[in-house]
Amino acid sequence: AENETGDIQERCKSFMSPTVTDIKVLEQRKDEMSTRMELMIMDTQAAFCRALEEVDGGTFKDGKVFEKAGVNVSVVYGNLTEEAAKQMRSRGKVLKGKDGKLPFRAMGVSSVIHPKNPHIPTVHFNYRYFEIEEADGTKQWWFGGGTDLTPVYIDLEDAAHFHMTLKEACDKHHPKYYPEFKKWCDNYFYIRHRGETRGIGGIFFDDLDSPDQEEVFNFVKSCAETVVPCYLPIVNKHLKDSFTPEEKDWQQVRRGRYVEFNLVYDRGVKFGLATPGSRIESILMSLPLTARWEYMHEPTKGTREAEMLEVLRSPKEWI
Amino acid sequence: AENETGDIQERCKSFMSPTVTDIKVLEQRKDEMSTRMELMIMDTQAAFCRALEEVDGGTFKDGKVFEKAGVNVSVVYGNLTEEAAKQMRSRGKVLKGKDGKLPFRAMGVSSVIHPKNPHIPTVHFNYRYFEIEEADGTKQWWFGGGTDLTPVYIDLEDAAHFHMTLKEACDKHHPKYYPEFKKWCDNYFYIRHRGETRGIGGIFFDDLDSPDQEEVFNFVKSCAETVVPCYLPIVNKHLKDSFTPEEKDWQQVRRGRYVEFNLVYDRGVKFGLATPGSRIESILMSLPLTARWEYMHEPTKGTREAEMLEVLRSPKEWI
Repeated sequence: AENETGDIQERCKSFMSPTVTDIKVLEQRKDEMSTRMELMIMDTQAAFCRALEEVDGGTFKDGKVFEKAGVNVSVVYGNLTEEAAKQMRSRGKVLKGKDGKLPFRAMGVSSVIHPKNPHIPTVHFNYRYFEIEEADGTKQWWFGGGTDLTPVYIDLEDAAHFHMTLKEACDKHHPKYYPEFKKWCDNYFYIRHRGETRGIGGIFFDDLDSPDQEEVFNFVKSCAETVVPCYLPIVNKHLKDSFTPEEKDWQQVRRGRYVEFNLVYDRGVKFGLATPGSRIESILMSLPLTARWEYMHEPTKGTREAEMLEVLRSPKEWI
Repeated sequence: AENETGDIQERCKSFMSPTVTDIKVLEQRKDEMSTRMELMIMDTQAAFCRALEEVDGGTFKDGKVFEKAGVNVSVVYGNLTEEAAKQMRSRGKVLKGKDGKLPFRAMGVSSVIHPKNPHIPTVHFNYRYFEIEEADGTKQWWFGGGTDLTPVYIDLEDAAHFHMTLKEACDKHHPKYYPEFKKWCDNYFYIRHRGETRGIGGIFFDDLDSPDQEEVFNFVKSCAETVVPCYLPIVNKHLKDSFTPEEKDWQQVRRGRYVEFNLVYDRGVKFGLATPGSRIESILMSLPLTARWEYMHEPTKGTREAEMLEVLRSPKEWI
């Protein structure tokens, strides 16, 4: 809430880029949820980018630590057909448009960070807001999002820290949020043809529209504020870990699985690729810089690679 | 036709592995198309593997020339539901089964070869036969297949040789085959979200069931017999080509596109991944060993990389 008071123009100065919506429009609509969300995602982008830049004394940009890192903000206004509107929501719901058209606003912040060192996990988060106006003027709205971790090797301490940080943010809003959204995350990031999850999960939710807009916004804001405390301590802890070529290879095999999930199952990617005129580079930003597919790769029993696979094959409770 | 006479047992000695169907059964059913096709795909596998092994004085196995090379034969017998039977064919056709079940036989040979040297193109081919028995005892059958080339850089001579070899095989059977199946290939291996074809094409066809079974089999056999003369001269020509790290990087970017096509669009991969119990390693054998995704990668105008992209964005006639 500390960020929500004060001059919008002043607040914008800390952002990485100009807001998509003109500052004057944001000021006119300052109490509207779409304005508050747009400012919140800009804050999240700026805070996360700044934290990454500070890693290892400011080497983010020269790519010493991260092989590929993207922190994207997207704000889109437009009109949807009734058919498209139905597909936007994971629980399809029929919406009535004026002359079949439904004006909508969609916005979100998303990020995928692929580090070079196989002992530093990949992280992904996405927080988004959607609103759509029906013919009678009523507004449908919902939030979605989540943060999840994809390590190459299991580190129990990291896993507990990551999940505990998310649980604390969830618990401030509802005791059911963490257990429910943890399970949703394990189910969503599942590579069915491999029988493996993509990583060790985190939280994931969609279509969240209760108890009320204010409370859901506050919950999403709490989640967005955890991305730095969830991830940066893990990065810093493993920054100087040495690794072998074999560990790097296993990382590359896991990166291949990451590509498989994102291209075959991810709803956002599938929707984006199927939408004519969408920005392919943004949609595929989540892919790693490099990946590897070895025929019949199966780690030897008892190794740390086999331990990782075991966890991916049957998701654990980490806290 | 030279391979179709003589003792089946004798013929099997030249194969890389035992036939899937027992030799005794093949001998009993020696005039059936499923037997003739099974022997033909075994021949194709053996001939292609042998040709690859001879490259560079027999270095195929130690991986000096090829980063990843697979030549697979698959023979499957079973029962399909009417719904599944309809999906097997690209032009969906309703088939009536006995108690809803339709006995089928499917078989094919397929290969993807990813060389290390960026001046040697990737090749892919697949030739397959499918038959299914309806409730009244009538057999539906069809052939499908194709051979296509994915270079990293354009070599006009290679492209002309590859397409001409395919055209000659096609022309022996029907003057319309090459132009039709060349176009089908360009349309099939199209990465819609990129607006690019996967490579410089070749031929592709499916559901081929006319003028008669004998003639279609002879055509498919001619195609299968071209895989060695299509590809090996190109491999040998570029075997000693030197390359720069930048050329290797561009190869890796193109490999990323190969992964995108195979995971997002390829019918066989999509069908395989969605089929419970299918052999994932065989389905994903076609993926390269390594691939790369660079954010906003766009070759500089006038370079050989830009020339390659231009061709992929508007397919050419090579002969």
